[in-house]
Amino acid sequence: MPAHPQRCTYLGPEGTFTEAALGTLPEAVTHEVFPSDSVAGALDAVRGGEAAVALVPIENSVEGAVTATLDELATGRPLTIRREVLLPISFALLVRPGTTLDDVKSVTGHPVTQAQVRRWLARHLPHAEWESAASNGEGARLVRDGRFDCAFAGEFAARRYGLEALITEINDAPDAMTRFVLLGRPGRIAAPTGMDKTSIVVWPAADEPGALLALLAEWAVRGVNLLRIESRPTGEGLGRYSFSIDAEGHVTDRPVREALMGLHRISSRIRFLGSYARADRTAPATDPRLANHEFARSAAWVARCIDGIGEHPEL
Amino acid sequence: MPAHPQRCTYLGPEGTFTEAALGTLPEAVTHEVFPSDSVAGALDAVRGGEAAVALVPIENSVEGAVTATLDELATGRPLTIRREVLLPISFALLVRPGTTLDDVKSVTGHPVTQAQVRRWLARHLPHAEWESAASNGEGARLVRDGRFDCAFAGEFAARRYGLEALITEINDAPDAMTRFVLLGRPGRIAAPTGMDKTSIVVWPAADEPGALLALLAEWAVRGVNLLRIESRPTGEGLGRYSFSIDAEGHVTDRPVREALMGLHRISSRIRFLGSYARADRTAPATDPRLANHEFARSAAWVARCIDGIGEHPEL
Amino acid sequence: MPAHPQRCTYLGPEGTFTEAALGTLPEAVTHEVFPSDSVAGALDAVRGGEAAVALVPIENSVEGAVTATLDELATGRPLTIRREVLLPISFALLVRPGTTLDDVKSVTGHPVTQAQVRRWLARHLPHAEWESAASNGEGARLVRDGRFDCAFAGEFAARRYGLEALITEINDAPDAMTRFVLLGRPGRIAAPTGMDKTSIVVWPAADEPGALLALLAEWAVRGVNLLRIESRPTGEGLGRYSFSIDAEGHVTDRPVREALMGLHRISSRIRFLGSYARADRTAPATDPRLANHEFARSAAWVARCIDGIGEHPEL
Amino acid sequence: MPAHPQRCTYLGPEGTFTEAALGTLPEAVTHEVFPSDSVAGALDAVRGGEAAVALVPIENSVEGAVTATLDELATGRPLTIRREVLLPISFALLVRPGTTLDDVKSVTGHPVTQAQVRRWLARHLPHAEWESAASNGEGARLVRDGRFDCAFAGEFAARRYGLEALITEINDAPDAMTRFVLLGRPGRIAAPTGMDKTSIVVWPAADEPGALLALLAEWAVRGVNLLRIESRPTGEGLGRYSFSIDAEGHVTDRPVREALMGLHRISSRIRFLGSYARADRTAPATDPRLANHEFARSAAWVARCIDGIGEHPEL
Repeated sequence: MPAHPQRCTYLGPEGTFTEAALGTLPEAVTHEVFPSDSVAGALDAVRGGEAAVALVPIENSVEGAVTATLDELATGRPLTIRREVLLPISFALLVRPGTTLDDVKSVTGHPVTQAQVRRWLARHLPHAEWESAASNGEGARLVRDGRFDCAFAGEFAARRYGLEALITEINDAPDAMTRFVLLGRPGRIAAPTGMDKTSIVVWPAADEPGALLALLAEWAVRGVNLLRIESRPTGEGLGRYSFSIDAEGHVTDRPVREALMGLHRISSRIRFLGSYARADRTAPATDPRLANHEFARSAAWVARCIDGIGEHPEL
Repeated sequence: MPAHPQRCTYLGPEGTFTEAALGTLPEAVTHEVFPSDSVAGALDAVRGGEAAVALVPIENSVEGAVTATLDELATGRPLTIRREVLLPISFALLVRPGTTLDDVKSVTGHPVTQAQVRRWLARHLPHAEWESAASNGEGARLVRDGRFDCAFAGEFAARRYGLEALITEINDAPDAMTRFVLLGRPGRIAAPTGMDKTSIVVWPAADEPGALLALLAEWAVRGVNLLRIESRPTGEGLGRYSFSIDAEGHVTDRPVREALMGLHRISSRIRFLGSYARADRTAPATDPRLANHEFARSAAWVARCIDGIGEHPEL
Repeated sequence: MPAHPQRCTYLGPEGTFTEAALGTLPEAVTHEVFPSDSVAGALDAVRGGEAAVALVPIENSVEGAVTATLDELATGRPLTIRREVLLPISFALLVRPGTTLDDVKSVTGHPVTQAQVRRWLARHLPHAEWESAASNGEGARLVRDGRFDCAFAGEFAARRYGLEALITEINDAPDAMTRFVLLGRPGRIAAPTGMDKTSIVVWPAADEPGALLALLAEWAVRGVNLLRIESRPTGEGLGRYSFSIDAEGHVTDRPVREALMGLHRISSRIRFLGSYARADRTAPATDPRLANHEFARSAAWVARCIDGIGEHPEL
Repeated sequence: MPAHPQRCTYLGPEGTFTEAALGTLPEAVTHEVFPSDSVAGALDAVRGGEAAVALVPIENSVEGAVTATLDELATGRPLTIRREVLLPISFALLVRPGTTLDDVKSVTGHPVTQAQVRRWLARHLPHAEWESAASNGEGARLVRDGRFDCAFAGEFAARRYGLEALITEINDAPDAMTRFVLLGRPGRIAAPTGMDKTSIVVWPAADEPGALLALLAEWAVRGVNLLRIESRPTGEGLGRYSFSIDAEGHVTDRPVREALMGLHRISSRIRFLGSYARADRTAPATDPRLANHEFARSAAWVARCIDGIGEHPEL
């Protein structure tokens, strides 16, 4: 079944941060864009060919992993990460035009949003009653329809729902950030940019004490820095985990390649989720080109050893 | 402010699995029981003295960590885990008496429940529309009030809301299990039972590559088995984590004590969450008494070395 | 200066165990054989081209490393190990014909020999006076010349010096064994036999606490078993060491190759001393062909990841 | 059998570096001093009670370990190290009065000395014939007796044998140093000085691949720096080793104590050889008092956890 390369889906509905994040990507203009109603739905749209790519949140600096995304990526037909987007997260208090803070009796928003504005609410709207909505966009819609007095959502959602932003830049954590990933079907990995990230999911070989330690040693011994590690239940019972890992560098960098090979040997299962440019444009702790260079030098040295010209250029 | 030792709260509302789990504990009869409307609320009730103990879910074999519980335990006034409860999780489809499967057009339940019955729904109620409720108990209430045709909840909730269980034992994952913890204010740790578990939260000393490896080595070198490890964002930005860890053994077991001391030395912060009997009554991989014995033997040997009677019983 | 491939030297003089060990090798008949008067002399004969190969002892199961050999291999123009020979070591008490045990007042032999017959001497010749000789062969010569009554040497030395073996099979350690290595100028490494050994000398990068641990981790993480590890002073002051290491496997086995590359990257200096068939014909703990296979499988997997056909044979 | 605390032996004969090293210790004047003819003899004198203490060489910066000392300390009745002495090693060329360099046809000295003056000899006495002596003192005696023209020995040996030092300060390695240890029967360990060293011998539990790595991890995880590590054959066959280790710190320092306890648990055998002041008066990389302090703080924290006053001074 042929893909429709011109279509791009995202975790909807309209007016959520995911749509805002998508707006920062070229795909927002080069593709026909449509929302999906769940992470699973967005990924299945790509798997099934209705979309070429999907943008979904994967991690939030306050709430942690978006487990639906991690779990969907770990199972089903493989997808790979093409890009990542970082979006600072702050909320606006959206009201119907004319509403003042004193008028507010009821508040809505996504439960994850609630967790990020709890302290603000306690200080500024201590008596307002909270009821959760399925998404921030849905919350905004419910305010428009008169069911609640106000909703927390991205400021960009105001216009879409005919609301106004009474207060903006609300977040208990001042530097809150959400990371989104653009997923597609597996294909040839893009060339390294020098500031890349590689993502995998790995299932330890056995349920043995030192298994996680051994997984980490594969990275450490090659000098590869880990950026993120999340444990997720495998569904085979309490205490059985897979690990979702982001490491510094590109799969074609030799340290990363060798570490992945090591993990492949010692784990019961491993899934490669892609190598892609880091959205934070951070230079790696160790210059991967230098690391590559050292790996190449060491390979050349071993080759000379085998050929018997190890340390004797003059022979 | 004096505690009211006769009161026990739990994550409500009534009719949830947490209430069912509480029913398996002596506290259900020895204490006056009341629901709290959130994990944070339940914990604050203990911190503030309105309750002596609180029961909240901490982990599910399908969905993973209950992050609200992990995050609440990691911050605020310290609480410790007194007991743990394991409850097999299966759902009943609750309907108003007389409703048949063919009548069902709308379904509700907690979002976490939805994730566990997705495949069942796709097969048996492919056309029913799902809308999430704040809790399974709340979903049952909404069915009673006529807003939805059916709700997924524990079978035990039927009676409370005047509903009947149309179908029982529903769960996509056949052995789904939730783990709950009974929390109280810090106090003297109960004596070891020989089948214990110790829980901590630890913040690596620095944002350095090998920090997690070093944390794990503290356990490994003393032969202590880890049962659970979860990373959680510290809220200081993407890529900054604390680790929530359950280890085999009791804080008074020497291997565990020494490992905790080691973590205390190398981490920037550590919080002890308690030692308590394992609900699964599983004997540890290594007999902790043996481990204790070996630690005692090695301590005695060093003492003899210092006294100069190391290997000379005859002196 | 061209080599004389037909010549082979060994640590002399004639009548020593090294000559006996050489007798077990094809080089004993295919080459013109001559003794050198020291390990350094034998190696320099190869370096200078007077000999194609040299046989010298490197390790004894009782006395440990032959440090002269380790140090000579670590410095100067590189040489590589072509073969190894294991020789059981037991001594004969050589006397001039007609001498009886009761006649013996003075004994000689190499100091290393003395260490291996000390208990035998204390029991059977408690009153005989020991004086060391420069080698066992030299000791036998001195007995022939009448300077001592008897000498400890290999039984094979009797005939050469016109002596007779009064008692044979003397050694305090019943299974004493010496290992010898046949050294040549670097050349293309012989193909693996499936039961090989690889030798190196490595200088840790810095005088830092974890340096040795890091060197060992390079082997451990690739599952390569170490057979021998000796620390030697670098001559730069107390506490500065190089490590002489024998590992299981051949430099062309991928685990060994990768470990060597890792050592090359993290050490300040490394010298490859060769890959060669194990004299004990011991199958490795891990079948190196299997290990190779796993390394090849993991490399193929990474290649598929890069090409985007990771887990999708159907694409 | 009572010891004779007033007697001290050393590796003789008179006129060797060991006697010179002894001259730097108070024992040289407080004790009656006598030479032993071997390391084993010196140690047995202490074991048997003929001497209270014995001074023997243990390590040389050029030649490495004095294996006779390591092996004697690892077996037989335990002895412990009371002190260590460092002595710079340079040689004088001793001749009978009137001899000039041009007169020299034959040279003698201990084989270890020969290794340290080889380059000097090649440059200044290329045609002199070398014959080894049992010790440098013995070499000097043989020169006095006319058997050789000159001997390499410590300058201090000249007077004793009626010789004169033709040339002094000879050593191919400019900063050559020998370390000596003063051994006694086990007794209460002297109090730490803040600049101490602890010595042990340890036999890995099994002949398993990771055994050495595990031994090193016990030190590393407690932050204890290793100063020396030597492998020695156990005598049970090639490839079976014990490890002789010097670590920074005193057995009563908690990091060292805990590391020793860890080694005791995982090794098949361990022998404590003492804690004593470092002769180089080098402050440890980590202040051991600080390390002790951290260990004490962590122990206090665990105690508070057990008592339930973990992080709540106010409770």
